[in-house]
Amino acid sequence: MNRYSTKDIFKRLGLAAVMVLSAMVSEAQQKATWIWYPGDYEIWLANKMQNRRTERGSFFPPFWRLDNHYVLMDFHKVFDLAQPEEVELLVEGDYNVKLDAKLISGAPKKITIPAGKHKVNIKVHNQQYVPAIFVQGKTIVSDSSWQVTYEDKEWIDETGKVSDQSGTKWLNAGYWNFNDPQVRPSAFQLNREPQAAVSNVRQPQSLFVDFGKETFGFVKLHGLKGKGKISIYYGESAEEAKATETCETLDHLAIDLSSKKDSVMNLSKAFRFVNIQMDNGVSLDSVSMLYEYLPLSDRGQFRCSDEQINKVYDVAKYTMHLSTREFFIDGIKRDRWIWSGDAYQSYLMNYYLFFDSPTVSRTLAVLRGKDPVTSHINTIMDYTFYWFLGIYDYYQYTGDKTFIQQFYPRMQSLMDYCLGRRNKNGLMEGLAGDWVFIDWAEGLSKKGEVSFEQLLFARSLETMALCAGIVNDAEGAAKYKGLAADVKSKLFANYWNEQKGALVHSRVNGVQTENVTRYSNMFAIFFDYLTNAQKQSVKKNVLLNDQVQKITTPYMRFYELEAFCALGEQKYVLKEMKDYWGGMLNLGATSFWEEYNPNRKGAEHYAMYGRPFGKSLCHAWGASPIYLLGKYYLGVKPTSAGYATYIVEPVLGGLKWMEGKVPTPHGNVSVYCSNKQIKVKGDEGRGTLRFKSKKRPDVKGGIIEAKGDGIYELTIEPGKEYVVDYVPVAEKISTGTVKSKENQNGKGI
Amino acid sequence: MNRYSTKDIFKRLGLAAVMVLSAMVSEAQQKATWIWYPGDYEIWLANKMQNRRTERGSFFPPFWRLDNHYVLMDFHKVFDLAQPEEVELLVEGDYNVKLDAKLISGAPKKITIPAGKHKVNIKVHNQQYVPAIFVQGKTIVSDSSWQVTYEDKEWIDETGKVSDQSGTKWLNAGYWNFNDPQVRPSAFQLNREPQAAVSNVRQPQSLFVDFGKETFGFVKLHGLKGKGKISIYYGESAEEAKATETCETLDHLAIDLSSKKDSVMNLSKAFRFVNIQMDNGVSLDSVSMLYEYLPLSDRGQFRCSDEQINKVYDVAKYTMHLSTREFFIDGIKRDRWIWSGDAYQSYLMNYYLFFDSPTVSRTLAVLRGKDPVTSHINTIMDYTFYWFLGIYDYYQYTGDKTFIQQFYPRMQSLMDYCLGRRNKNGLMEGLAGDWVFIDWAEGLSKKGEVSFEQLLFARSLETMALCAGIVNDAEGAAKYKGLAADVKSKLFANYWNEQKGALVHSRVNGVQTENVTRYSNMFAIFFDYLTNAQKQSVKKNVLLNDQVQKITTPYMRFYELEAFCALGEQKYVLKEMKDYWGGMLNLGATSFWEEYNPNRKGAEHYAMYGRPFGKSLCHAWGASPIYLLGKYYLGVKPTSAGYATYIVEPVLGGLKWMEGKVPTPHGNVSVYCSNKQIKVKGDEGRGTLRFKSKKRPDVKGGIIEAKGDGIYELTIEPGKEYVVDYVPVAEKISTGTVKSKENQNGKGI
Repeated sequence: MNRYSTKDIFKRLGLAAVMVLSAMVSEAQQKATWIWYPGDYEIWLANKMQNRRTERGSFFPPFWRLDNHYVLMDFHKVFDLAQPEEVELLVEGDYNVKLDAKLISGAPKKITIPAGKHKVNIKVHNQQYVPAIFVQGKTIVSDSSWQVTYEDKEWIDETGKVSDQSGTKWLNAGYWNFNDPQVRPSAFQLNREPQAAVSNVRQPQSLFVDFGKETFGFVKLHGLKGKGKISIYYGESAEEAKATETCETLDHLAIDLSSKKDSVMNLSKAFRFVNIQMDNGVSLDSVSMLYEYLPLSDRGQFRCSDEQINKVYDVAKYTMHLSTREFFIDGIKRDRWIWSGDAYQSYLMNYYLFFDSPTVSRTLAVLRGKDPVTSHINTIMDYTFYWFLGIYDYYQYTGDKTFIQQFYPRMQSLMDYCLGRRNKNGLMEGLAGDWVFIDWAEGLSKKGEVSFEQLLFARSLETMALCAGIVNDAEGAAKYKGLAADVKSKLFANYWNEQKGALVHSRVNGVQTENVTRYSNMFAIFFDYLTNAQKQSVKKNVLLNDQVQKITTPYMRFYELEAFCALGEQKYVLKEMKDYWGGMLNLGATSFWEEYNPNRKGAEHYAMYGRPFGKSLCHAWGASPIYLLGKYYLGVKPTSAGYATYIVEPVLGGLKWMEGKVPTPHGNVSVYCSNKQIKVKGDEGRGTLRFKSKKRPDVKGGIIEAKGDGIYELTIEPGKEYVVDYVPVAEKISTGTVKSKENQNGKGI
Repeated sequence: MNRYSTKDIFKRLGLAAVMVLSAMVSEAQQKATWIWYPGDYEIWLANKMQNRRTERGSFFPPFWRLDNHYVLMDFHKVFDLAQPEEVELLVEGDYNVKLDAKLISGAPKKITIPAGKHKVNIKVHNQQYVPAIFVQGKTIVSDSSWQVTYEDKEWIDETGKVSDQSGTKWLNAGYWNFNDPQVRPSAFQLNREPQAAVSNVRQPQSLFVDFGKETFGFVKLHGLKGKGKISIYYGESAEEAKATETCETLDHLAIDLSSKKDSVMNLSKAFRFVNIQMDNGVSLDSVSMLYEYLPLSDRGQFRCSDEQINKVYDVAKYTMHLSTREFFIDGIKRDRWIWSGDAYQSYLMNYYLFFDSPTVSRTLAVLRGKDPVTSHINTIMDYTFYWFLGIYDYYQYTGDKTFIQQFYPRMQSLMDYCLGRRNKNGLMEGLAGDWVFIDWAEGLSKKGEVSFEQLLFARSLETMALCAGIVNDAEGAAKYKGLAADVKSKLFANYWNEQKGALVHSRVNGVQTENVTRYSNMFAIFFDYLTNAQKQSVKKNVLLNDQVQKITTPYMRFYELEAFCALGEQKYVLKEMKDYWGGMLNLGATSFWEEYNPNRKGAEHYAMYGRPFGKSLCHAWGASPIYLLGKYYLGVKPTSAGYATYIVEPVLGGLKWMEGKVPTPHGNVSVYCSNKQIKVKGDEGRGTLRFKSKKRPDVKGGIIEAKGDGIYELTIEPGKEYVVDYVPVAEKISTGTVKSKENQNGKGI
């Protein structure tokens, strides 16, 4: 249909078109991105985010140490060019440029690098923002292959000769997704999208607005006019927005406007309802909001025969979207800080929904911060260990060695901090300033050597051994392996009580206490630290034993339900999901709560921490069904790093059918499972489908292997779909009466 | 003479006057000052200063690590009030205020603290500037009695009860002289004062301006008009300002002004001459400058019978003024960084001129920076040790324990870094990244275990032992004392060579080298590490031995001349001063140079580091006569911390008479000395006047004590003047031919 051929177009447009095409080609060749010192931008961005928390208009920052970026940074790379190349430089900060160690005059925006082998150094100073550069040439681009250092130890002798024994430590540059030269890292903001209210109730000097569901963003006041004060009371519930004296967040404004003007609030807030109160003389046309979010795709999917579970999954998904922001945060209304224990659960859920590795590594980076280590992460001993566990899982799910290579020294110094705080028995015991948290539970003892901490400590040491291997630190690997084995053997020697058939809670002054709690026992199950006999013993004596103090927080319910799943109790867990999460849905929840107690009534549900609206109605840990459904129903999990190998072990748990996708680094594992048929496909790696069948199943696309006990296995090759017709074995359900109970107190400092 | 009595005034002025008076009273009662975390403001300010260096228009920052402030700070103090008190709050940053752990709504500018015992916490976040507060009430003020922390380890249990075992480390707040609430620390700038040019030479499109002497500040262009470019070439010499292609500093501007306008340059520069070149179409009325300086008083004074020495003293004083700024810097034209070895000499000179302790402690604080220690200070091993030595002297001269108490943990971690880098013999030997500097000297070996480094190491360990005692760390004191004794004994065991009658330069692979250098030998003299016999041996075999490699840098000449003085060779040193510093004056120097070689001619004097104008014509270390004249001619030095006791040992060194003042923490020691009479007075502490006399002297005001060998002593009580008539013993002068030689290379990285 074109009137001109391509050749004609070139003729007509001449050079300009050729240049455009050539620019397109070069763009395809090399992709530049803004780069910085690894971890520094994360620290800077977290400082911004964590200091945006307010409580009824007061600034409310974290109580732990916040780190800071290096203000002076050296970036370099050596290039070997066939032809001279002009490159554009964009820099956040004051800077100089050296070509082959020779300073170029001024602060050049473009330089030409001659053909041959040449070294480019860019030194950047920035106190307020993180030193960052964007370099764009035809083949020369800024990316993670550049080397960075905050300290150049190349000294010279009296003849000007550079030392031959440099002590400079170079790291690969850090980056995220700042691929547009014009969008500087310092200008980062989450995406914004206008959203309209669902209902408005207007009274003479007030407006009550409902956005229809929990949301997060900036309230926008339209057509504001007059002189006087306006107060905005936010509510996750209508009750909260109406409770002007006790709602958790608010804004006060004073205006003096002779003509109508729109005004957007400075700080984003979490809310569904907005109650606007105005002085006489102030008027307002309407209220909308700018939804603020991190744009992430739902790579994981889940659908099943139970519509309530489907709804649970959708609301859990929305909960995760709301709480996955600059970093993984816990509650969107109140905390808005990064807690290592809470983030750990978000990492796990993320692997079954977004599979967004940068948000995991950003969160891990900022939680670790910088040396020296002066405190446990968030000041909490267990939260330090969750950080190590997070790396263990991160590597297992993503196979990304880079983060480990770059952060191994900081892993070492954090572990050194822990090792330096062992007691005379070589165990972790709270010292002054160590918050032994475990869980919010009435009367829970933190005295002496708590078994739960040793268990997490052992797993952390295993993580160190794993990572030492990845960075080729053979000495470290041996050291950490030995330490891990030692702590693990002490765990069983000191805490396993044959009579109780369980790990006891603690030792005080070297003596086992009588107390059995669920924590170390349930973690030992899915850490696979127990023999099968021990697992069954723990199930009976702890998990299904009403005499053992109940778990009352959704935080620990996450692990308790995981332990049940790991024991094959999916039927029980499905029932729990329907009761607990379904219960919230029945109360109109549009995102999942920090805590839910079915025995409460009305606005009682919103109270926590002794405050009538202290509870967060959108809390990351409330989204755990995403993880449970993906890992223990669809049954997909990696068995070696980055899904090089993985297993698919579908368990219907009482559902008639289910289907879904679990994301892997570069693809998905798709699973369908009904009472008759299993369909599975994986895009990468080598999977194993494992299932039980009463009779030898039929399979299309592969060869089934009988493993005995009615268990069958099938190897999943990448890109191939397998269809298996089978006869499922009836699933058991234990008659335990474990139920969620009221949360006594919350981490609402 | 007043027409009104005070009572009348009150009547006439009414309440307003009463309020003014009451404000004056309360101001007298308590003095508020801006406070921050100790060391943080210093780091921030040094980042600003050290990143202002340019080289021919290019940004030229340090190569070592720059630290950063804590962005989140908690300030608190407990008050016990007889009456409620309203206090004003000024804060640099976002903040909240807690009264008795309860958050006050919003960001209050005033709060009222009730009568009784109450705790006020102010939490401040500031990424760009250092979190700082100014609190002003009647009795409640912000000062160093407030406690600060970057990390609050007060966690709570599930009942909300605060932990009874806090791990929070509190320090006393840091401060300087920001006593005006309206002058925020972030807005700090040095004082500025307009200065006019001394001469102008105008040509059609240029103006050549002479300010008459070396100066530092901002060039101001008056009556600038037109469109085009202007270039400003700065020169410490006329030759440099004229050498547009090779002068060290310059500014380029582009203007487009239809009417006349004045313009002040952004960055201050060091210069005497300014060469302005303008495009056609650009015109300029005149040029002046804003002299930029830290306002400090000359508390030390010196006058004598030799007018050339008086001139040397005055120019040395001006050199010190120019190089004492936000911090002690070395050269004002080029470096403008803080080098520990150079600053160490400034501290010493400062004690005999300004006695400005804050500039010493600011400089010490920023050189140390923060943990972790990843490098020697300025990457140089000896510079780490000078830092410890600086603290030793700081305490001896000022008696200020606070700095030591606050920084002892950072002293420990820096010493731990050193201890961790000892070789298998327990000695300091350069590892990768350790710059063993010592001095710029041709062929000077840095290989193996260098004796000079062990000597500084021993003194540093002695400093640690001293400071451990001050902070009541008995264990540390014993440890460091033992380590110091060990290193000192190894120094003599490994390096003292009886045959050579000197310390040799180094050991390589455990074997003494044959090389003898001056460094460790001259330091051993004034560290008093040698017996008298050893001192005489070193004097003969090293200091006066032309076969031993000569000192060619003024940096090490400082110590060489000090060693001569410590050996009583003031006559020789006076001659050196007249030759060397007098030589610079003869060449028209208005401040003292980085280096001076009398054999050079004309513009050759300005060359260094292979650059025609690489030499700094105003370098702090050039001001050493201030120190030598005060300490070894007037002869005043503390013998215990803060001049609690001190000695006055005047030595004329060939002068007919001299008089002067040496500052002490809260006063001065005044000394007059001629061939006939000594007059001395001290404002504080207990001094000892010591001198030689051929016959028993007459004394007014005290009792003289004969010590034998013609030595007499007199105790100086505070506030009393003593007049001694005596008959001096002839001073010796050694016939050594030690002369300054050309500096081969300089630390001009």
